[in-house]
Amino acid sequence: MRDARHVAVAGVSGYTGLELARILLRHPAVKSATFYVRETGGAHCLGELFPQFRGWGEAPVRALNAETIAASPAGTVFLATPHEVSAELAPELLDAGLRVVDLSGAFRFSAPETFTRWYKLPAPHADRLGEAVYGSPELYGEKIRSARLVANPGCYATSVVLALRPLSEAGWIAEGSRVVADCKSGASGAGKELRRDLHFAELDENFKAYSVFAHRHTPEILEQTGIGAEQLVFTTHLLPLARGILSTLYVTLGEPHTPEQLEALYRKFYAGKPMVRIWPAGKLPELQHVAHSNFCDIGFALDGDGRRMVIVSCLDNLGKGAAGQAVQNFNLLLGLEEQTGLQ
Amino acid sequence: MRDARHVAVAGVSGYTGLELARILLRHPAVKSATFYVRETGGAHCLGELFPQFRGWGEAPVRALNAETIAASPAGTVFLATPHEVSAELAPELLDAGLRVVDLSGAFRFSAPETFTRWYKLPAPHADRLGEAVYGSPELYGEKIRSARLVANPGCYATSVVLALRPLSEAGWIAEGSRVVADCKSGASGAGKELRRDLHFAELDENFKAYSVFAHRHTPEILEQTGIGAEQLVFTTHLLPLARGILSTLYVTLGEPHTPEQLEALYRKFYAGKPMVRIWPAGKLPELQHVAHSNFCDIGFALDGDGRRMVIVSCLDNLGKGAAGQAVQNFNLLLGLEEQTGLQ
Amino acid sequence: MRDARHVAVAGVSGYTGLELARILLRHPAVKSATFYVRETGGAHCLGELFPQFRGWGEAPVRALNAETIAASPAGTVFLATPHEVSAELAPELLDAGLRVVDLSGAFRFSAPETFTRWYKLPAPHADRLGEAVYGSPELYGEKIRSARLVANPGCYATSVVLALRPLSEAGWIAEGSRVVADCKSGASGAGKELRRDLHFAELDENFKAYSVFAHRHTPEILEQTGIGAEQLVFTTHLLPLARGILSTLYVTLGEPHTPEQLEALYRKFYAGKPMVRIWPAGKLPELQHVAHSNFCDIGFALDGDGRRMVIVSCLDNLGKGAAGQAVQNFNLLLGLEEQTGLQ
Amino acid sequence: MRDARHVAVAGVSGYTGLELARILLRHPAVKSATFYVRETGGAHCLGELFPQFRGWGEAPVRALNAETIAASPAGTVFLATPHEVSAELAPELLDAGLRVVDLSGAFRFSAPETFTRWYKLPAPHADRLGEAVYGSPELYGEKIRSARLVANPGCYATSVVLALRPLSEAGWIAEGSRVVADCKSGASGAGKELRRDLHFAELDENFKAYSVFAHRHTPEILEQTGIGAEQLVFTTHLLPLARGILSTLYVTLGEPHTPEQLEALYRKFYAGKPMVRIWPAGKLPELQHVAHSNFCDIGFALDGDGRRMVIVSCLDNLGKGAAGQAVQNFNLLLGLEEQTGLQ
Repeated sequence: MRDARHVAVAGVSGYTGLELARILLRHPAVKSATFYVRETGGAHCLGELFPQFRGWGEAPVRALNAETIAASPAGTVFLATPHEVSAELAPELLDAGLRVVDLSGAFRFSAPETFTRWYKLPAPHADRLGEAVYGSPELYGEKIRSARLVANPGCYATSVVLALRPLSEAGWIAEGSRVVADCKSGASGAGKELRRDLHFAELDENFKAYSVFAHRHTPEILEQTGIGAEQLVFTTHLLPLARGILSTLYVTLGEPHTPEQLEALYRKFYAGKPMVRIWPAGKLPELQHVAHSNFCDIGFALDGDGRRMVIVSCLDNLGKGAAGQAVQNFNLLLGLEEQTGLQ
Repeated sequence: MRDARHVAVAGVSGYTGLELARILLRHPAVKSATFYVRETGGAHCLGELFPQFRGWGEAPVRALNAETIAASPAGTVFLATPHEVSAELAPELLDAGLRVVDLSGAFRFSAPETFTRWYKLPAPHADRLGEAVYGSPELYGEKIRSARLVANPGCYATSVVLALRPLSEAGWIAEGSRVVADCKSGASGAGKELRRDLHFAELDENFKAYSVFAHRHTPEILEQTGIGAEQLVFTTHLLPLARGILSTLYVTLGEPHTPEQLEALYRKFYAGKPMVRIWPAGKLPELQHVAHSNFCDIGFALDGDGRRMVIVSCLDNLGKGAAGQAVQNFNLLLGLEEQTGLQ
Repeated sequence: MRDARHVAVAGVSGYTGLELARILLRHPAVKSATFYVRETGGAHCLGELFPQFRGWGEAPVRALNAETIAASPAGTVFLATPHEVSAELAPELLDAGLRVVDLSGAFRFSAPETFTRWYKLPAPHADRLGEAVYGSPELYGEKIRSARLVANPGCYATSVVLALRPLSEAGWIAEGSRVVADCKSGASGAGKELRRDLHFAELDENFKAYSVFAHRHTPEILEQTGIGAEQLVFTTHLLPLARGILSTLYVTLGEPHTPEQLEALYRKFYAGKPMVRIWPAGKLPELQHVAHSNFCDIGFALDGDGRRMVIVSCLDNLGKGAAGQAVQNFNLLLGLEEQTGLQ
Repeated sequence: MRDARHVAVAGVSGYTGLELARILLRHPAVKSATFYVRETGGAHCLGELFPQFRGWGEAPVRALNAETIAASPAGTVFLATPHEVSAELAPELLDAGLRVVDLSGAFRFSAPETFTRWYKLPAPHADRLGEAVYGSPELYGEKIRSARLVANPGCYATSVVLALRPLSEAGWIAEGSRVVADCKSGASGAGKELRRDLHFAELDENFKAYSVFAHRHTPEILEQTGIGAEQLVFTTHLLPLARGILSTLYVTLGEPHTPEQLEALYRKFYAGKPMVRIWPAGKLPELQHVAHSNFCDIGFALDGDGRRMVIVSCLDNLGKGAAGQAVQNFNLLLGLEEQTGLQ
């Protein structure tokens, strides 16, 4: 039987994969970590590919394919691969007996047609969707402990869902009212692939909105908050900085509430959830408070009418928005405290 | 009689004053420009205070007080001073026969109590408010031509008002529906005064919301768009870049419309207004398109239902958001083409 | 006979070409400007390709080839093309009777073998090298006035040569002593082509040296200062900002001098040269003083021994380092004041 | 007898103090950490002052004075205070039996007059200078193990000294030849005190040299490398980024050497020193390789003549340049592996 403390990471060359390496190589419960990349370029260890790992993170690097991972002693595999690659790798590795934490969008939806509609691809793994647990430790901690396939949430989705869920579950959002999620992300969230708009001289001193009414994280937000598709407007923007997502959310409450009531609602919802920090009413978190951490910080302001509410939700897109949350899920799989290795 | 082509600028030491200097010293109609600062530090010309002006912008610098300006041959004065200073200077300079373009908030409101409520100061200039014209050339061009006191709009307000006014005037916004203005500004908009959150190592790689439900530009937006106070939610954020405001606006239309209809509405509204550029439906402007310019660029996206609309409005907070718009107003005062010296 | 005030710009898609467009479209002596790009993508005017030009810079765009330019009424052509393209275009356009300002390295050297050695290419245009004038208006203003082919200097070379030439011409540098040029450039100097190290998330918060002992501007510096190849160490670094070069130069003087003597030497050398600004002894320019300008600012500090000298030279790599200097040369070709359209 | 594993940190409000908190609160050997600030503002724990510590770093905060620290059970105190404060606190705390790691310049020099000359202050602690050990673990590891007062090196000095010491100790630098240290630092190195040139809108997109021939780290470099004052030219520059120092060093070797010989010299010198990483000859480190680490990365390029050498030395000014190195010294005091808690 495989030991989940031996981990494999597929796709270490992107920013998420590198962050996984940074976390896992310092994680107290990890017995071994092996990194798989499409192009090793002859390298045998991480420090040869990425000099920042020299002298402390000389973990082995191997060519990426399902067979090699399956033949290794790894008990857990993190897939930091594009969704089409994850869709292929996950079933094979599950069959080989590994537990899988997938950081792509491939297994995040309960219905295959949702994936197909938003990702413009068939969902060949449709029979596996039922097995997947949406990897939000704050929402599905119990299910994740026993999951074999964890679908790690999208970075924007994490930020928006954690901010809205206490309200939506409590039924405090005015029925049918517009919910606006105006989200801003640093450039590492857009990945490492070269793109004109990510060229330094283009993004430096620039700021823009993108994928308006068309962002792939939309269906995750809808599915996880229960807010109606016609109720939500979700936009994303690109910030001239490397790491972090700040989402500003606009909600109308059905009934007037006091700031104290709202703070209490959030505190109760996230009681015992160490990676979500609720701010005192009227105080708002900033990106600098969560950079290089696995926290999601949530604060809000309430207008005098007690109904118009602005929520600010901050996280590090590579931390709680991707690699950090994946390790939080890994901790649950292992039965550890969820913050292990994440502080 | 004073010649309006001799100009005085009060308060050249801030970012707005410097931008005024950059524009006016190249302006083809300006016969002379003199700059007034609180502390000359013994300097006699601009290049001594600000090395970037050496060799081409060696305009005279004088100690700032109303008498000196009144005694000069200047026919137009730009007040790039805090609102309490402007409130004092403007009446004296008007009485001395100058035309005044004030860049502060002192004269932007029709009712003195609006000023008092948002700026926490008495409105001693109450008798002058009637004289003031709100300096939005696109909205009040005719009035500005003959004005003696122009209240140059706030930077955020310009960005939001120009984006919403075509809709609000046409009555296309769904009655009573929530209008969200999520605005992001570069750091020069926060001024030159030293502040912890504007310290480089604090703002670099950071992003935050501020003044939620409390920003002073709120009453300008309400007054200029006619949107109800209970309808609007206006938030501001600080971007880690120097120049530019991008506002993302969320509007629900009363009736479904096509993108073509919306584009036509905007194009018609801004026909003959050279400093507002309407983007083709579905294309969104970015800060880089307006940096160091006097343009306000407006684009929008419309959801499939024809009612949920996201508008993106971009300008340079020191250009169209302050100094550039002030010069545009100056051009109107002089009977020139409004884009003179602004391209 | 061709009128030099009708200008053509080849290669407008790069940052240098765009900066040429920004300057030339506002230049008072330019009668017409046409822009040539390899891929028009169906566009007919500049604003279609680059939205920042909409509404004021709607100049025509054509597919780039020598015949089309030759068939146009243009009297001057700016080549903002790679050196291999310039090497081909320049002879044809010279033969067609145009005056050529080439911004590449193709014609900067008196000896073809210098080009070949540093650019790893044959110098097919060898017979044209004699015709070319090195386009440093401060050093060769007279020759440039009557030139038909101007080889616009490299950005780093401009910064270093203008800082060292007064000393080297005066013979004040200690014989055989080491001269160090430690240069730092913003990212626009590296061009618009996508590259891993210019990806935003890679360069943001990063800084690095590159091309040590191997930068192509080395031979220009040697040829223009007369400093021996074994004397100079020239290094270049990439700054996380868009525009600007700051060079820190380390020189040992043969004889002790006072700061006043040094300042006088520089002021005399650049008397009547409006685009070079000499700073008072002991004061050092910064990038912000020259951004978006055509100035080269030079300051220095001298150690107590009167021999160890640190010179700081600043310019905008797209301004005086490229497009601005090219237009300064164009002004000389036309017999205008050299700063025309550059302030 | 005091237990050195109970630590006190004086001056937690600056960037260095915050970095100490980040490291010490995760350090496996630290039994308790208490933080002392001049102004607690009523706060009792770190998370109240700095929200990034909430939920994981709720260490106690106390008002800063020597008596309180002396009365605590702390066995080690880190002084992240200005040099004049350190000069006062250190003797009292030493007398009270604590071991002191001082991060200021107060105790870095063997001769009091050096301090007085460069810091313009009397050296009241002159009798303590003999007790102090210069806290460079790579150079004085043995002495530090038994030290009671460790003078943690300056950030620039660390970067320059570690790069030059192998050469200077080997006697490979050409006698009397010029050594140039051209150093560039991020803004956190300039501290948290508000200053015009550290205002975001001033430093953003800017770059400048400062303190030429006058930087306080000069005497440290001279004393630790043995290079003559007349031989060295040391300049410092301010980078528009938060963290990191990159020093470019220019050295002439007395005899020609091969790259292999040089690499071997450095590797031998730093054998068994885990926090200095030597790069392969011809490869140069960048700031991104050392950000948020305690490494100093050193690479070099050698000209064809085997004598002109360019060395690039990178570190994080808050890590190996300050707090990280202080903890490395703390590890030595405790007899631990020097990298404990630093990876």
